Amino acid sequence: MRSDALLLADIGNTHFHIYNGERVEHLSYEDAIEKYADKNLCYISVKHHLEDKIKKIKSWKNISNEMILEGDYTTMGVDRKALCLSHKDGVFVDAGSAITVDVMKEGIYQGGYIFPGIKAMLECYKRISPVLDTGLNEMISLQQLPTTTKDGISYGIIASIKALIDIHSKDRALYFTGGDGKFLASYFPDAIYDETLVFQGIKKVLVC
Amino acid sequence: MRSDALLLADIGNTHFHIYNGERVEHLSYEDAIEKYADKNLCYISVKHHLEDKIKKIKSWKNISNEMILEGDYTTMGVDRKALCLSHKDGVFVDAGSAITVDVMKEGIYQGGYIFPGIKAMLECYKRISPVLDTGLNEMISLQQLPTTTKDGISYGIIASIKALIDIHSKDRALYFTGGDGKFLASYFPDAIYDETLVFQGIKKVLVC
Repeated sequence: MRSDALLLADIGNTHFHIYNGERVEHLSYEDAIEKYADKNLCYISVKHHLEDKIKKIKSWKNISNEMILEGDYTTMGVDRKALCLSHKDGVFVDAGSAITVDVMKEGIYQGGYIFPGIKAMLECYKRISPVLDTGLNEMISLQQLPTTTKDGISYGIIASIKALIDIHSKDRALYFTGGDGKFLASYFPDAIYDETLVFQGIKKVLVC
Repeated sequence: MRSDALLLADIGNTHFHIYNGERVEHLSYEDAIEKYADKNLCYISVKHHLEDKIKKIKSWKNISNEMILEGDYTTMGVDRKALCLSHKDGVFVDAGSAITVDVMKEGIYQGGYIFPGIKAMLECYKRISPVLDTGLNEMISLQQLPTTTKDGISYGIIASIKALIDIHSKDRALYFTGGDGKFLASYFPDAIYDETLVFQGIKKVLVC
């Protein structure tokens, strides 16, 4: 990592994501604090209960309140706002523990929706019945109707997400980020996967 | 109930559904056994561990093996087979603890897929983060993009199911059954809701 670059962090539900201007590093909360406590770092965070611990770190600055997005709503996660700030137009999918889909038009937020993440979905099927306890067929084809339980579940997850996103991305650029972003993007011929999108959004509004 | 009618039962993941030729009664396992143990009844069942208890009831007959559906797959639930046997053509949605969607063409099963049920989906969001612990907005409009968390979740569940089913029901009749069937059917202008569909399917193949 370049020592002179401004460090940006996105503190999510399960991990710290840290960007040094070149690449994104994914760390546990403990590892991130241990590694970066003495570095200058600006962060956004959806984890309110972490605040006290982090506030003590003098070289870290919470810039969540600077993520101002025209048209947003009160309880919208700050990571979603940052992602939407990365481009003025498009559909933005963050596929992590949850999958958020947000639409931007001429710099104004239009609305969005939320799916459970793929891992959470598989857990969900499993809890309904042991018969539905299967993994994901990551090679599932959406071209033909499934004829096994595993494929029926995989298709149910992927094809429904795709069908709805297709409706909203017809005339718009489609961007993916997040842990399952690359995988999901592979089902959309013209999708752009970029794990730095949230940080690009942060940089757009940052005065630091 | 007419005392001379043949009783049919569909033993599901959470309830007994009993049909007397006129209407469907939904009972707990215990209540169903208590009420109907001395009546002649034919049943299909997805609950294998219930078998021993039920086998002792001399007046009840398991007809699961008679649900023969051309084109089906080995692990396909017998209730789904019965539902598909109700009509030769169409898309068949059973919206219960899970939501199954199956396609029939000229009497032959074409394949299908599975969503978690609405209740299971809401539980799933809740487990991801307390922020996503909301109920369903049962009046959610699919005409505009949501701008609250509750609407974003409600839209994520309903609009994705609708988007995928719309693709498969374009030129086909669309049938709904199950506990959430009536509610889900309300999002499809030409859908038919009928809580007796599984039993209609059973009656088609029944020699009893």
